[in-house]
Amino acid sequence: SEVKKIAVIAGDGIGPEVVAEAEKVLKVIESVFGYAFETEHALFGGIAIDERGTPLPEDTLSICKAADAVLLGAVGGPKWDNNPKELRPETGLLGIRKALGLFSNLRPAVVFDCLKDASTLKPEVLEGTDLMVVRELTGGIYFGEKLRRQGEFGEEAVDTCVYNVVEIERIVRQAFEIAGKRRKKLASVDKANVLETSRLWREVVNKLAPEYPDIELEHVLVDNCAMQLLRRPSSFDVIVTENMFGDILSDEAAMLTGSIGMLASASMGEGSYGLYEPVHGSAPDIAGQGLANPIATILSLALMFRLTFGYEDAAAAIEAAVAEVLDAGHRTSDIAVNKSTAISTTEMGDLIAAAI
Amino acid sequence: SEVKKIAVIAGDGIGPEVVAEAEKVLKVIESVFGYAFETEHALFGGIAIDERGTPLPEDTLSICKAADAVLLGAVGGPKWDNNPKELRPETGLLGIRKALGLFSNLRPAVVFDCLKDASTLKPEVLEGTDLMVVRELTGGIYFGEKLRRQGEFGEEAVDTCVYNVVEIERIVRQAFEIAGKRRKKLASVDKANVLETSRLWREVVNKLAPEYPDIELEHVLVDNCAMQLLRRPSSFDVIVTENMFGDILSDEAAMLTGSIGMLASASMGEGSYGLYEPVHGSAPDIAGQGLANPIATILSLALMFRLTFGYEDAAAAIEAAVAEVLDAGHRTSDIAVNKSTAISTTEMGDLIAAAI
Ligand SMILES: CC(C)[C@H](C(=O)O)[C@@H](O)C(=O)O
Ligand SMILES: CC(C)[C@H](C(=O)O)[C@@H](O)C(=O)O
Repeated sequence: SEVKKIAVIAGDGIGPEVVAEAEKVLKVIESVFGYAFETEHALFGGIAIDERGTPLPEDTLSICKAADAVLLGAVGGPKWDNNPKELRPETGLLGIRKALGLFSNLRPAVVFDCLKDASTLKPEVLEGTDLMVVRELTGGIYFGEKLRRQGEFGEEAVDTCVYNVVEIERIVRQAFEIAGKRRKKLASVDKANVLETSRLWREVVNKLAPEYPDIELEHVLVDNCAMQLLRRPSSFDVIVTENMFGDILSDEAAMLTGSIGMLASASMGEGSYGLYEPVHGSAPDIAGQGLANPIATILSLALMFRLTFGYEDAAAAIEAAVAEVLDAGHRTSDIAVNKSTAISTTEMGDLIAAAI
Repeated sequence: SEVKKIAVIAGDGIGPEVVAEAEKVLKVIESVFGYAFETEHALFGGIAIDERGTPLPEDTLSICKAADAVLLGAVGGPKWDNNPKELRPETGLLGIRKALGLFSNLRPAVVFDCLKDASTLKPEVLEGTDLMVVRELTGGIYFGEKLRRQGEFGEEAVDTCVYNVVEIERIVRQAFEIAGKRRKKLASVDKANVLETSRLWREVVNKLAPEYPDIELEHVLVDNCAMQLLRRPSSFDVIVTENMFGDILSDEAAMLTGSIGMLASASMGEGSYGLYEPVHGSAPDIAGQGLANPIATILSLALMFRLTFGYEDAAAAIEAAVAEVLDAGHRTSDIAVNKSTAISTTEMGDLIAAAI
């Protein structure tokens, strides 16, 4: 089959370590399934600031654009936290989303059996929780006009939240379609009792709903959703919402599963183009020590195979291998009950690669 | 002592029932402590829409302005949910906040012993949780310019989030001061890595911090806060944040205590003026059946005595009476383990009144 191009961004902190293990898995998939991949590494985030004076160098963008998908480790760290805006890793993150047109962020929140007890929620409440937050990623208050000015009461700051029907339609359609492949329930989250953008959002959702008669739709206000995620997490299937609400709710949802260190995410553009990354951050405190858990990054690769390449066999093989290694009791220190028996980042990568 | 004026807004759903019990308690406080109150009832919310064609009639506003404090039951219900904006209870709520200058919403989230098991969080995680969300209430995206327009890609909607230094300073100062009377920890929540209003917010917080050297300050990003509330709720003391983030986080915080039906809240203006209301909603499904729990409203009255009138003795007496009645095993049906032994709204009010 055709050679697929993957741009690989290791990034900062534990990024390089976890990405290395995912690349190990990629090699195994090539030889076992006969798929062919070409990877190209690119600088991004803090390391790009250090080496190139910008978090998102032009050639990184070209490499990503030339690829079919991007695998990203993690970016950021305290080192760059006090930099001016143009020299911060987040600015690169927002820039790459916009430049690659990644308008949809898919954040599955599932409970891993071996991590059930890691959640702060009661097991009986968590039981059966398996939801997906579909977050709009290139609009809203993140990208609207921002400014400082002198007002009547001294200095003031302004952020603008803008959504148009096209932006709302494409993300909502995608959410309806994802729900159709899952448990057929969609919760659209907004603040329609206060925000004009939310009222437009709700109108668009209601306009599209008749095209998806088999999907059970509910509108949930964002404050209520923050509560219901705690009260009845297992009753949610797909949640679709705008950028800022999605930022907050997807993190809340991930955390309540107790499995946040193991979760993968996808940011999708037009067609099947996507950027895949673990939900966890760059964990600078443990970087370079072989302590990081590469599973979320390896599962991000599986998601890439499924969503961008349609290689369901490879995706399923990776997921099965991860399950097998966990079932056999292997743990990196973040998920080990007994830390003294914990294995290293590379050992975990080796075991998963071997299990495929 | 001087006669204090209280505007009483019963509102919709269970509002009238729970407010009636708080007024019972008010009478007892008058006779036991010798304080004098004058109450005046006012129409507001759904009932005002029905009877007067507007959620916030002019005379309601006059009554509130002439009073020293406002006691509010609850407003809203499905009956008005599809009304045009000017005829919705929420519009009244936003209007009264602005008109009365209620810039600060205090939302304590505590765990009631008798409700420990009602939380979906594990008891050991919840242990010691006692936090207060201080939410800015008259600024931000709630009150900025809103509009619809035709853009390049069809119809679009705009919301504007604006904050000036004066608005930020007054709420942040209040939060520092509240923290000083509690465990001396303040978490300021923003999204400074994305929003200009958040960057201004953080600057103001950092500018004021040296004036409060005994307060331990941390800046927390809103997405991270949504996670940390789940992971380590007991480590928070006071959380201060802008209007929209506060809406989401205060509901999340209240829900995780498991005690949401028992929580009181205060919305404060300049000086000691305040509007007090239970955190729970108008629960139209159980309205008029004597099933509502009046405790949150009664505790809102206690908060009024403490914060507006400085009647600490009366506030403490009410809180002690509530604790005594609960300790004796009395429960309304919402908090009863055995529903068949549940008492009614008025019985609960009577017991608390008698215990003072
Ligand atoms: C780093 C930050 C700009 C980013 C966001 O808010 O989108 C992050 O929180 C995320 O969710 O990917
Ligand atoms: C009803 C709504 C406008 C209101 C708000 O968002 O402020 C409510 O959620 C609240 O928190 O008091």
